[in-house]
Amino acid sequence: MPLRESELIRRIRRSARASRNRVVVAGIGDDCAILRTTPGCDSLVTTDFSIEGTHFRREWHPGNAVGHRCLARGLSDIAAMGGEPRAAFLSLAIPGKLPRQWVDKFLAGLLHLARRHKVELAGGDISSAPVICADICVVGEVPRGTWLPRSGARPGDSIFVTGTLGAAAAVLQALRAGEPVSPRSRGARQHFYPEPRIAVGQYLRDRGLATAAIDVSDGFSTDLNHICQESKVAAVVHEHSLPRPTPANWLRHTSALHLALHGGDDYELLFTAPPAARIPRTICGVRVTRVGEIISGRPQILLMDSHGQRKALTPGGWQAFSE
Amino acid sequence: MPLRESELIRRIRRSARASRNRVVVAGIGDDCAILRTTPGCDSLVTTDFSIEGTHFRREWHPGNAVGHRCLARGLSDIAAMGGEPRAAFLSLAIPGKLPRQWVDKFLAGLLHLARRHKVELAGGDISSAPVICADICVVGEVPRGTWLPRSGARPGDSIFVTGTLGAAAAVLQALRAGEPVSPRSRGARQHFYPEPRIAVGQYLRDRGLATAAIDVSDGFSTDLNHICQESKVAAVVHEHSLPRPTPANWLRHTSALHLALHGGDDYELLFTAPPAARIPRTICGVRVTRVGEIISGRPQILLMDSHGQRKALTPGGWQAFSE
Repeated sequence: MPLRESELIRRIRRSARASRNRVVVAGIGDDCAILRTTPGCDSLVTTDFSIEGTHFRREWHPGNAVGHRCLARGLSDIAAMGGEPRAAFLSLAIPGKLPRQWVDKFLAGLLHLARRHKVELAGGDISSAPVICADICVVGEVPRGTWLPRSGARPGDSIFVTGTLGAAAAVLQALRAGEPVSPRSRGARQHFYPEPRIAVGQYLRDRGLATAAIDVSDGFSTDLNHICQESKVAAVVHEHSLPRPTPANWLRHTSALHLALHGGDDYELLFTAPPAARIPRTICGVRVTRVGEIISGRPQILLMDSHGQRKALTPGGWQAFSE
Repeated sequence: MPLRESELIRRIRRSARASRNRVVVAGIGDDCAILRTTPGCDSLVTTDFSIEGTHFRREWHPGNAVGHRCLARGLSDIAAMGGEPRAAFLSLAIPGKLPRQWVDKFLAGLLHLARRHKVELAGGDISSAPVICADICVVGEVPRGTWLPRSGARPGDSIFVTGTLGAAAAVLQALRAGEPVSPRSRGARQHFYPEPRIAVGQYLRDRGLATAAIDVSDGFSTDLNHICQESKVAAVVHEHSLPRPTPANWLRHTSALHLALHGGDDYELLFTAPPAARIPRTICGVRVTRVGEIISGRPQILLMDSHGQRKALTPGGWQAFSE
């Protein structure tokens, strides 16, 4: 049964109350939400689309996974800055005939993740569109001047990534090939319910360990290229050190290396740290792997094989308009 | 010629630099934008969709009008809180084959309005979708605790509106009837290039004149109903005092009263003020009209005709899902 706008707003408003925090002075119910930054902090703002047909498909992705991923995309950007998320704003446009049950599951998935991270759903907009179109805006905080930029990588720094690379893209390949993938199964969770690395980002920020950071949302090669561009440096990546997921059925179709390098949607953190920085192998329960080093030179990525041979790597991650 | 994502981001980044302000510490080019609230201020956040087929049509609305209205919707919410806009975040999804020229005009219209209000385009997202789907997030500021709420209207307060009501909806009716309407013509500008009432909102806030305020985006009756609901009061509206636009060709189709009461997209301010408050007839060059008063009772609107007869008015404004 389709939803009326006023009813949807009431439902969101009711469920959003569960995760109030001190930064949100007033949430849904006025022309704007009112936020009061914690003294001594800067605000972080990020927005991310989740569009049916571009970022998800209803036949592949359960509503609560779409809601989870929608918010996770924004939280992951806050994590990459070393920040703490405070408030989320959801703009949601849906086709007139979308079943109410789908919207309920979408909101449940989004709000479950919001509660876990103490993020209040503080506002947004509701509309209609031919496909489901969600835009999440997340506001976070970081102690003044301490955010992790993309632009701070220096020659000699080591390059690290959290978790593993390529599982999310491997699941997508399997779905495209028509294989059944259970959303809650081991390995598939990274695609359906990615875990934003908020705690790892804060750990690095608190200890001043990272010189640059980004989240691997567009693919490792594309995101490392962003760091190289913004920091005006080059990167050498050791092919054999890239952390790949444990092989599963849906990994057999394509090269795990290709997916690790170029697959998107992993939402791991990619960061650089000076040689003297002591980076533990595990931070807040998440594995951290050294995968290369920053060198001087024009912005580019060199992939080094096990024989020490280097070749230029063209960034090949996900781009909205290339599909 | 279609645009690649990276190129579009470069173009936006370049043009956004024109309107830097002190609140935006860092804009496009990292995982998040960084904002530093002015000491003693609260932040205001609002998000608004502009979706092709729901909020505009390419055959009716030139690209720069769509860009202008997209940002105006957000600025108008900041105006209704009495705030000053600081930063905007644009999430823009477009069909792969949309001509580059359309995007250029859209951005020109949006950035022209942004510059006039010293708002920096500080971030956003780019994606593809079957129809053009823009979501604007605007962040503003207001001296701590001084925002104009929807919930402060008290029995005895007068009800005021700025400008005129119904012109935007009248233009929409004309467009639907297939009549030619020149976007820049007098009267039509309210539909194509609405002027957010930022200065009026600040005037009311600075002087502590208004007890409640909202912008008339969904239609006068719907938005006054929001004030009644949030303030837990009723309203009496004097039918003859509603400020209507100067008659134009495209006004002859429907009752001007109906459009003034229920037409949306006017982006005027609707506010309440105590009887003792001195409200000028013109604020910052904008006409202000007293249209009724707040009374005690359950939230409802009573429409009073020239004979003093009152009848209940059902809110009938624009709702996304009713079309």
